[in-house]
Amino acid sequence: MPLAIVGVGLIGGSFARALRQAGYTEKIIGVSSASSTKKALASGVIDEALSLAEAAAQADLIYLSQPIQQILTTLDVLQTDALITDAGSTKAAICDRAKKLKRGRFVGGHPMAGKESRGVEHADPDLFRNRPYVLTAREPALERWIERIGARLVILDPQEHDRLVALVSHLPQLLSTALASAIGADPEAAKVAGPAAQDLTRLALSPYEIWRDIFSTNAASIDTALANFIAKLETLRAQLRSPEMEKVFTQSAAAARTLRGDHS
Amino acid sequence: MPLAIVGVGLIGGSFARALRQAGYTEKIIGVSSASSTKKALASGVIDEALSLAEAAAQADLIYLSQPIQQILTTLDVLQTDALITDAGSTKAAICDRAKKLKRGRFVGGHPMAGKESRGVEHADPDLFRNRPYVLTAREPALERWIERIGARLVILDPQEHDRLVALVSHLPQLLSTALASAIGADPEAAKVAGPAAQDLTRLALSPYEIWRDIFSTNAASIDTALANFIAKLETLRAQLRSPEMEKVFTQSAAAARTLRGDHS
Repeated sequence: MPLAIVGVGLIGGSFARALRQAGYTEKIIGVSSASSTKKALASGVIDEALSLAEAAAQADLIYLSQPIQQILTTLDVLQTDALITDAGSTKAAICDRAKKLKRGRFVGGHPMAGKESRGVEHADPDLFRNRPYVLTAREPALERWIERIGARLVILDPQEHDRLVALVSHLPQLLSTALASAIGADPEAAKVAGPAAQDLTRLALSPYEIWRDIFSTNAASIDTALANFIAKLETLRAQLRSPEMEKVFTQSAAAARTLRGDHS
Repeated sequence: MPLAIVGVGLIGGSFARALRQAGYTEKIIGVSSASSTKKALASGVIDEALSLAEAAAQADLIYLSQPIQQILTTLDVLQTDALITDAGSTKAAICDRAKKLKRGRFVGGHPMAGKESRGVEHADPDLFRNRPYVLTAREPALERWIERIGARLVILDPQEHDRLVALVSHLPQLLSTALASAIGADPEAAKVAGPAAQDLTRLALSPYEIWRDIFSTNAASIDTALANFIAKLETLRAQLRSPEMEKVFTQSAAAARTLRGDHS
């Protein structure tokens, strides 16, 4: 089945490279800006650059790896009989919009992977390896490729996905941004900042352009995650000198080890 | 001047190694547990193991690199004419206690360095390189060695030090612990956790035994830092879908770059 990647950046390019590495032999079409398709053609990430309408007519699988708002716009105009999936960081708004598709079958997706460098020139066939890859419904053809590229398949409905990423991804981003803001507001603080402050403010380097769409399409879940986190901080504040804090540290360290795949 | 390291662990051992590398030729005495002094003697980190009283009688410089509560206890019993400094993570309680010393001169210190592995076997002569090293007062003999081991000298009074580390070190620890706790409380969350959650929960792996003393000797400053941070989160929560958020991201990214020594 020919594949069309719509939005050939880090994620779309990495998906193309990962499929090739996993034995995908069909044509890979790129639909993207002139500068991205030029780089993607030159480096062999895609075989051909086409318009969305041309690609939609040829492809059996369409992979939308644009920013969220652009995915929504693409869904508004897409006419295809292909299987369609996406790589957007929130799922409810996108899956809702996809319900309006007259033709084709849509299954939402979200590879929980990324890196600081962006653009197709940083495409990495191993970007998804050992990372969760969420699908919003079962779809054997997609599931098979997700397994072959070494990702860990997770099936979640769109609302549950958005609730969970608010907690594990959007909340960490806001904590990092808020911490950098708090430290930045104190002219003396940078003088004594060590590895802890550097670690926790690394996410604050993320560009807002990605986050605007995430906040606008997942505001309710993020609001709930923030409210719960603030309540937890208030509890810790009250327990600073209490023996309860030892339990919190022990349980949190265990949770942090689980996140690292260490179940000892 | 012979040096006595009291508490030969990662920090004390690294200070000894850093001084040696920087050209320190005098004897280095270790005062520590039998197991630590055995390892420190075998690896050449110290030249001799003595009791505190013996070391205090011989040394011209005494370096207290024990946990905070043990530093306080050592100060209660220490009798010496030497220059005394310490490496405790909070300074007001320690400097207060040192005022009761009948003899010797005390200058508080705090190297803003560390690593995940503990114990003298991980002692690293470059641990302090390019890291802030706080002294609570000017002291030319100490300042010279801090420069020679490649650290960045910062002079701060004890209260200002404690206020700043509450913000750049103790608050990040509590955020990481609270986040790991929040994620750990949701049985589905680990399934979709990616690099962001791993990054922000790394500090949550820290053992509570270090933090108990920090919380008990810096509770007021930590409480203030937490209260200010909670207020900032409430502001961000109200701004989730507002254009104000772009400014916050831009300013926070600039602050995060400053913390990395990137002033572009």
